[in-house]
Amino acid sequence: MTTRTKILKDLLSVHHIDALLISNHYNILYLTGFHGLSPEEREAWVLATRNNVYLFTDARYSHFHSNNITVIEITPEKPLREHLKEIAIKEYISSSGCESDDLRMNEYEILQKFLPSLKGFPHIFREQRTIKSIEEISLIKRACEYTDQCFKDIVKEIRSGLTEREIAFKIEMWIRSHHFDTAFYPIVAVNEHAAIPHFNTKTDGNKKVEKHSHILIDFGIRYKNYCSDMTRMICVGEPSNEYVNVYKALFAVQEKAIQLLLPHASYADIDTQTRKTIQEKGYPLIPHSLGHGVGLEIHEYPKISHSGTDYVKNGHVITIEPGIYLPGKFGIRIEDTVAIENGEAIVLTKTPKALLNI
Amino acid sequence: MTTRTKILKDLLSVHHIDALLISNHYNILYLTGFHGLSPEEREAWVLATRNNVYLFTDARYSHFHSNNITVIEITPEKPLREHLKEIAIKEYISSSGCESDDLRMNEYEILQKFLPSLKGFPHIFREQRTIKSIEEISLIKRACEYTDQCFKDIVKEIRSGLTEREIAFKIEMWIRSHHFDTAFYPIVAVNEHAAIPHFNTKTDGNKKVEKHSHILIDFGIRYKNYCSDMTRMICVGEPSNEYVNVYKALFAVQEKAIQLLLPHASYADIDTQTRKTIQEKGYPLIPHSLGHGVGLEIHEYPKISHSGTDYVKNGHVITIEPGIYLPGKFGIRIEDTVAIENGEAIVLTKTPKALLNI
Repeated sequence: MTTRTKILKDLLSVHHIDALLISNHYNILYLTGFHGLSPEEREAWVLATRNNVYLFTDARYSHFHSNNITVIEITPEKPLREHLKEIAIKEYISSSGCESDDLRMNEYEILQKFLPSLKGFPHIFREQRTIKSIEEISLIKRACEYTDQCFKDIVKEIRSGLTEREIAFKIEMWIRSHHFDTAFYPIVAVNEHAAIPHFNTKTDGNKKVEKHSHILIDFGIRYKNYCSDMTRMICVGEPSNEYVNVYKALFAVQEKAIQLLLPHASYADIDTQTRKTIQEKGYPLIPHSLGHGVGLEIHEYPKISHSGTDYVKNGHVITIEPGIYLPGKFGIRIEDTVAIENGEAIVLTKTPKALLNI
Repeated sequence: MTTRTKILKDLLSVHHIDALLISNHYNILYLTGFHGLSPEEREAWVLATRNNVYLFTDARYSHFHSNNITVIEITPEKPLREHLKEIAIKEYISSSGCESDDLRMNEYEILQKFLPSLKGFPHIFREQRTIKSIEEISLIKRACEYTDQCFKDIVKEIRSGLTEREIAFKIEMWIRSHHFDTAFYPIVAVNEHAAIPHFNTKTDGNKKVEKHSHILIDFGIRYKNYCSDMTRMICVGEPSNEYVNVYKALFAVQEKAIQLLLPHASYADIDTQTRKTIQEKGYPLIPHSLGHGVGLEIHEYPKISHSGTDYVKNGHVITIEPGIYLPGKFGIRIEDTVAIENGEAIVLTKTPKALLNI
């Protein structure tokens, strides 16, 4: 936690401010380990000053403890703003910052009356959060191990007659019964449904597995707040030649993209090159980005797309997930969670990628 | 949906603006029925002008359809701002509004360059959303019916040796296996854990049910986007006299609070009066508000607390959930979801409130 406190102090120096107010749920979790019940509600705020790091929360969580952090209970009688005002006076705060990508317009309106010269800074922890510590990577590794285990167990249960939603439910149950959370609602898509890149299994997952079905399964586990993300395909019986060819082509493309993850390589270039390869093979362009960063959030930075400006760095954890989608027919996506460690791309999701038929 | 379109047109008139940009997930759901995958990500935006209602979303959802709404696909090549700029010119927009309680500071910074005279309005749909239509109330009724059914089924499964988390998991499984969602992670709290008003069962729910345990169960179901919320107590074996007395006292307090829900009554007064009654009986003050509005969100307006300014109105759906918490001993909360219909408070959660022992 001392490392994280240092991050805060450094930010104050870099931005020439005396205090920084942090409102984003995931940034608070990152900095303090505080995790309330809902990322959608303001259950905690953090204020970092040159001398202190305060966490403000209500009676529900006032027993929260974290090293080097002063927890202050906010009450209806003494709300956040009163504490900010007091601290600003006590610690001679003359300039302050907040997260402009998180704070709402009307929150800023109010808070700027209590924190002197309050200025918004966008994405203040973004770069920091892309570089995962050894501890963070080891949590994501565990999330990926459980993902592999879940997939292995679920494959055994897939049989004709099950709907996409029923398979998604089995995945959910596996994850919840192991006391983890889903990183997102699992995507299970059969045949032409898999050609819809972000098929909504919850609302539309009524298609049944049959003989010769192709099944796309895209899911992730949240283990101690850290996410995994993996996509695999399953064929019921022997797949057609066309399917096998597309699968093989995509498999090669995905492996190649992972090989391109060398330190200092541009993600935009890797994305562009991968798209080009798919196009050259005569398949449609991927209608989504090649991947995304993974961590406390299922989608975070670095950006792995042609519009991104990030470069491959040690400590990055990302997904590589090219897809070939043939509308009305079938869709294939192969996705791994990959960490960059000591200059190497380490694939953390280890479920085999050889064509799987059951 | 025509009613909702009318709401938008009326808002334009009331606020003297030519266009209104809506960013809040739940407001978009309320107005258009659009429901993406995550309330945390910006998956759609709505722009209402005097002549049109536009919904902007990406390729994943561009097949979305809703009456009287023009769906526009946003792409990396033509992002939201370009569409806004075009529409502003085409429809002679000279003043516009946005949701200041939802739009982030940096989103405003960008969008104000594309929407003329963009001004923030706080809580623009709040009042509207507190008044539920007949259709909305009937969905919440269904959510409450399923909540009663779930409770009935779960009670049968509770036995000594189960942990709080295992019971919460059974509730979750019941809900998910019926293809509904939990309205929030269930709170299951045994004995002194129940004295913590918002006990976190997910992280701390290791206490086992034993002979003479008192179990608090607080959960809700999300049915077709609408939530229910209910809390009941279960005793294993005969409860102590002290427990029975506290239970009876609280039961009377809760019933009384529901009786006070008469049109035009002030929620702040009802909250204050209920607190006073509990205090007069010699019990500690409730460390949370008496209740909250329920609808698309599990916590919404009207505010049922001493700091609220709302009055009881037809169409309100709220919870009434007083509690008596004796730290280190036990806690009791009784909670119902209640609708105000034709001047009457109708309790929608019908699980009996007589002291239940198993």
